[in-house]
Amino acid sequence: VRDAYHDDLDAISTALIEMAHLVGSAISRATTALLDADLALAESVITADETVDLLYRDTEERAFTILATQAPVADELRVVVTSLRMVAELERMGDNALNIAKIVRRRAPASAIPPELRATFVEMGNEAEEIIARTASVIMTRSLQEAADLEKEDDVMDALHRRLFTVLLDDRWTHGVEAAIDVTLAGRCYERFADHAISVGRRVVYLVTGERPTKV
Amino acid sequence: VRDAYHDDLDAISTALIEMAHLVGSAISRATTALLDADLALAESVITADETVDLLYRDTEERAFTILATQAPVADELRVVVTSLRMVAELERMGDNALNIAKIVRRRAPASAIPPELRATFVEMGNEAEEIIARTASVIMTRSLQEAADLEKEDDVMDALHRRLFTVLLDDRWTHGVEAAIDVTLAGRCYERFADHAISVGRRVVYLVTGERPTKV
Repeated sequence: VRDAYHDDLDAISTALIEMAHLVGSAISRATTALLDADLALAESVITADETVDLLYRDTEERAFTILATQAPVADELRVVVTSLRMVAELERMGDNALNIAKIVRRRAPASAIPPELRATFVEMGNEAEEIIARTASVIMTRSLQEAADLEKEDDVMDALHRRLFTVLLDDRWTHGVEAAIDVTLAGRCYERFADHAISVGRRVVYLVTGERPTKV
Repeated sequence: VRDAYHDDLDAISTALIEMAHLVGSAISRATTALLDADLALAESVITADETVDLLYRDTEERAFTILATQAPVADELRVVVTSLRMVAELERMGDNALNIAKIVRRRAPASAIPPELRATFVEMGNEAEEIIARTASVIMTRSLQEAADLEKEDDVMDALHRRLFTVLLDDRWTHGVEAAIDVTLAGRCYERFADHAISVGRRVVYLVTGERPTKV
């Protein structure tokens, strides 16, 4: 039979996966809300972020209780400490989805995204969904290969992010400063979203290999 | 005589204060570089961030070692776990100074800040310096009053941040899209800088009172 201690460790893993799923749903809905200027969908993302925050606090509390009452060592200590960091990264990823939804809300019923950038934001949204799905997978499988793949996904996101600026800085940009600001802020959310996923991947590498990430 | 365990705990506190000082220096120099379009100063901020990252990793490693070898309980466990979070917030604050320096580097020798926003960025820079100085003080003193004061400083920063957008969205804005993007990104760095400081303050409140922050 499993004891309460191992049940607690399992509960942390389950919560991390659950958070990744919630964040995946949030970024997917936030992107659709952004593309469709859908205020109701944006509001749903804003409300749902409270659940992510709640899971974050519960998981942190649980990790803390394990440290306080079980004094785990070696691998299990590493799992608990790493989980504390992962849960913080996932919470921040949720915040980036939240911030996209807030841009939608601020501009509704107008769209924050001009037509010529629509395709790029579709791609950024898809990339973000793949990234969070892979992040969940990396957390579950602890696959070093998948962690490395996450870094490649981040390169794709960075390229899309740079493409935004190429369009924004083109002389043919006719949408003015307000649209440029919204595009800049929304683009930054997707870029940060991917960065936090990379951090999760690097934590998994640390967990598996004991190698400290050289970048943070 | 003090034992190695308490020396390790002290070393973590010392490292947190040292990081806060480095981050204070970074945001101060980044602001000056931004206002003066000073490439050399910006480069110094970019280089110095490596030291912040190094301290971050060392401190995390030290906290981990304490957890692994000493199995601290009660207050001391709370100090170690809280330190793990604080060190991550301070590292992110350093990244925000770094990102301001990168904006300077990208635009040099031109200035990223139009004349009519100079005064606002001076204020944001001063506010950021006060915030990190207070953050260091909160870490040292664990004063609940100072942690509450940090929240007020954040309100000031938010107001300055909003003022930026008022200027950017004014019909009299003549600096075009590129300047608007730089101002948006730089402003966001200061706003995030303050947010991370607030998180440190809330961690201190948790440390002292045991009350979990309701916001994360």
